Amino acid sequence: MRTSSDLELILREAERIVSPSEEERRRLERVLEEALRRVEESIKRLNLNAEVIAVGSSVRDTWLPNNNELDIFVLFPKGVGDKEVLGSLIVDIAKDAFGDYEQNYAEHPYVRVRYSDFEIDLVPAFKILPGERIISSVDRTPLHNSYVREKLKRPNDVRLLKAFLKSIDAYGAEEKVGGFSGYVCELLIINYGSFLKTIEEASKWGSRVYIDIEHHLTEEYALSAFNGPLVLIDPTDPRRNAAAALTETQFNRFKVAARAFLKNPDIEFFSRGLKGVKGRVSAKQIEEQLSERKTRIIVIEMGDLDLSRELLWSQAKRMARLLNEELEANGFDPLWVSGWTDERDEIFVAMELPSLNLPVIERRQGPPVGSKEEMNFLKSYLGSGFGGPFIEGDRWYVYRKRRHSDAISLINELISSKAPTILRGAKPKILTDRELLLLDRDVLGWIYREMRKEEFFIRYLVD
Amino acid sequence: MRTSSDLELILREAERIVSPSEEERRRLERVLEEALRRVEESIKRLNLNAEVIAVGSSVRDTWLPNNNELDIFVLFPKGVGDKEVLGSLIVDIAKDAFGDYEQNYAEHPYVRVRYSDFEIDLVPAFKILPGERIISSVDRTPLHNSYVREKLKRPNDVRLLKAFLKSIDAYGAEEKVGGFSGYVCELLIINYGSFLKTIEEASKWGSRVYIDIEHHLTEEYALSAFNGPLVLIDPTDPRRNAAAALTETQFNRFKVAARAFLKNPDIEFFSRGLKGVKGRVSAKQIEEQLSERKTRIIVIEMGDLDLSRELLWSQAKRMARLLNEELEANGFDPLWVSGWTDERDEIFVAMELPSLNLPVIERRQGPPVGSKEEMNFLKSYLGSGFGGPFIEGDRWYVYRKRRHSDAISLINELISSKAPTILRGAKPKILTDRELLLLDRDVLGWIYREMRKEEFFIRYLVD
Repeated sequence: MRTSSDLELILREAERIVSPSEEERRRLERVLEEALRRVEESIKRLNLNAEVIAVGSSVRDTWLPNNNELDIFVLFPKGVGDKEVLGSLIVDIAKDAFGDYEQNYAEHPYVRVRYSDFEIDLVPAFKILPGERIISSVDRTPLHNSYVREKLKRPNDVRLLKAFLKSIDAYGAEEKVGGFSGYVCELLIINYGSFLKTIEEASKWGSRVYIDIEHHLTEEYALSAFNGPLVLIDPTDPRRNAAAALTETQFNRFKVAARAFLKNPDIEFFSRGLKGVKGRVSAKQIEEQLSERKTRIIVIEMGDLDLSRELLWSQAKRMARLLNEELEANGFDPLWVSGWTDERDEIFVAMELPSLNLPVIERRQGPPVGSKEEMNFLKSYLGSGFGGPFIEGDRWYVYRKRRHSDAISLINELISSKAPTILRGAKPKILTDRELLLLDRDVLGWIYREMRKEEFFIRYLVD
Repeated sequence: MRTSSDLELILREAERIVSPSEEERRRLERVLEEALRRVEESIKRLNLNAEVIAVGSSVRDTWLPNNNELDIFVLFPKGVGDKEVLGSLIVDIAKDAFGDYEQNYAEHPYVRVRYSDFEIDLVPAFKILPGERIISSVDRTPLHNSYVREKLKRPNDVRLLKAFLKSIDAYGAEEKVGGFSGYVCELLIINYGSFLKTIEEASKWGSRVYIDIEHHLTEEYALSAFNGPLVLIDPTDPRRNAAAALTETQFNRFKVAARAFLKNPDIEFFSRGLKGVKGRVSAKQIEEQLSERKTRIIVIEMGDLDLSRELLWSQAKRMARLLNEELEANGFDPLWVSGWTDERDEIFVAMELPSLNLPVIERRQGPPVGSKEEMNFLKSYLGSGFGGPFIEGDRWYVYRKRRHSDAISLINELISSKAPTILRGAKPKILTDRELLLLDRDVLGWIYREMRKEEFFIRYLVD
């Protein structure tokens, strides 16, 4: 157990490493200014009626070092058209202002451009006043911007929280992470006043937490109206839980990490996230694990997908959930099933199974003896199975043919019948064990992490 | 669906085949008379104070054709000594009267002798008057004898019921069967009046049944005082449920068979039991099943046991239950585990498993995040396992080494640590799959029946 002066020293050191250098600040400001000017000039050239604003951490002063990302919103009057119109207008602007671009689509169209080593998201939105009904969820962003700029007293504490969350892999609201968004970090610091207070409070959070900075709602109503472990009412829109994307796992991971940090404050809780430890591994390391564990790995690879980054992640995760359910239901008892994407054009779903094959027969419980379902059960199975129907205690049982005794054929069937429509065309490659050698080291790193599931912060909790 | 005249014809035909011929009757009476005389003469020669009586189905006229079994009780005054004394006295008598004998022991000593093609159980007991406190459970038998002889109007209906129960493998209270004893059959016929009425009532039995012919107890008290699905108060001793040995499985099997018979009356419901269909099978038939089912069979053989028939059965069943529990608890998911004995000096426990080996690792659920058990869990597993501890939802999980990943080694450990003491000395042989060829055809027949679990009567229910 360290002393509180340790804690102060660690926080001072952490603040130093999470703050961008003066040089970095100047560079970001310069690039942002140039990018804004280019967009404004394009709007003029294209003769559009639109307003350009910078949003996100770069203008709220909550960005982390080496974070070369900028967000620029282009606000159109409501009359201009629907989302599709916005999508094509922003493409026109991106082409004109930056030449090359990558088209993206979450629930809303946007484009990503590269400019002088920065990645810039160009997002079209409708101009909304506070309290006015939004059309698309991004329309809120400028309101968030104003709110945070007005209320946030300690931007550096947001940096600490972001670095902390990155270090425990809980930063980001996107499906890949299911964690805390930048805006949620800002609201938590606004609510609790400081990083340390946030950590102290989080370490005591119960199973559900309600935070409503502007006192828009009552706790009772809010907890019944919203799902999720953290109900954090958006100060700019009480109809919205700003932490809706947060999963129970990430909520609990943050609570435990906060306890661990308070017990043993250490710079690793910040530095890890800034370094972006990924850990590539070799196929050999995985083979060693497999020969120790005596399990089998299956990897499904679906390539040549023309989907946005967000869609790649959500499809990968969705496929993983689907496969997990079906493998469970068919008795394959997976240790884990996980989805991943290279964020270009491939998604992967990997899983670790006790065995690729199950016996052809299974013992199936039927209805109680004498119940009204009895006759149907008996008629279905009499003479058709591998034994029985027979009575045990007060129930019928039967040995019947398992619907799927081969994991690979189950997966193949699943892909062709239940995969999300946008993946139907993809020709999946199914690899097992030794074929893993063929995979990229990033893919292997992800599989290895799933096998090991190491959480660095637990040792600080147990120490 | 057959008509009621079909039913009458079948019952008439059944009564014919369950009744011994006149010649057989005469032979049984002659052998019984001779045996009784021999025992009486021995008692005189040995100068003992004891009374000899014939008991059981032979004197109640409820024995089935080809049932060459007799029961003779030797009643001693209470002062003669304890069970051990009774045991040595009955051995003296058996030696003197018949020469060769087989010593047996259930809860009570007795001997079995062979005499002119008959198997005779010679049982020593204390002489008890109705209402007098018994010392050993066999002391009741002479009372049962008198009761049944006095009350039973239709002995042939007991024969029908016994043949019916034999046909569905539910006749006999011994551990091997867990079914209906001869005495229970007699009491059911006394209670319901006839075989047909018994079957009609049984087909309508609910989940628990209370029968108290002499109205000794109240239903409420009886159902709370006794376990088991059928509470059949012994008319000669209200402290005893005569059907205590009946398992829920056999109770339900009888109910279903009764329904099946009423729906489609057929002589098979009687003839099967009289023929004693056993069905020997070859190792090849089992191998065929295994290659279709893709399961594995393990057989444990323990030989050279110097135990009575009853003890052989109860030890075999006990070992099977123990193994079933442990295999379940360790994730081997057995399709069935079953105990058997050759009734001489060997017991066998066989089981069908999806696989002889499981992965070395298992996923184990831990306590909720933040609970007071959390720290113990984390300390136990941190760095010691195959991955984790990690959080999923609101719980801790870990991948840990399975305690037993090899069924054979689990079984070996179990036999050396948890087997019943009287089996500890036995050197078990463990056979799998192809080694089954080494086994006797009776053993194979039993294994095959366990794999198939066919119940002939179900087709009559479904037809």
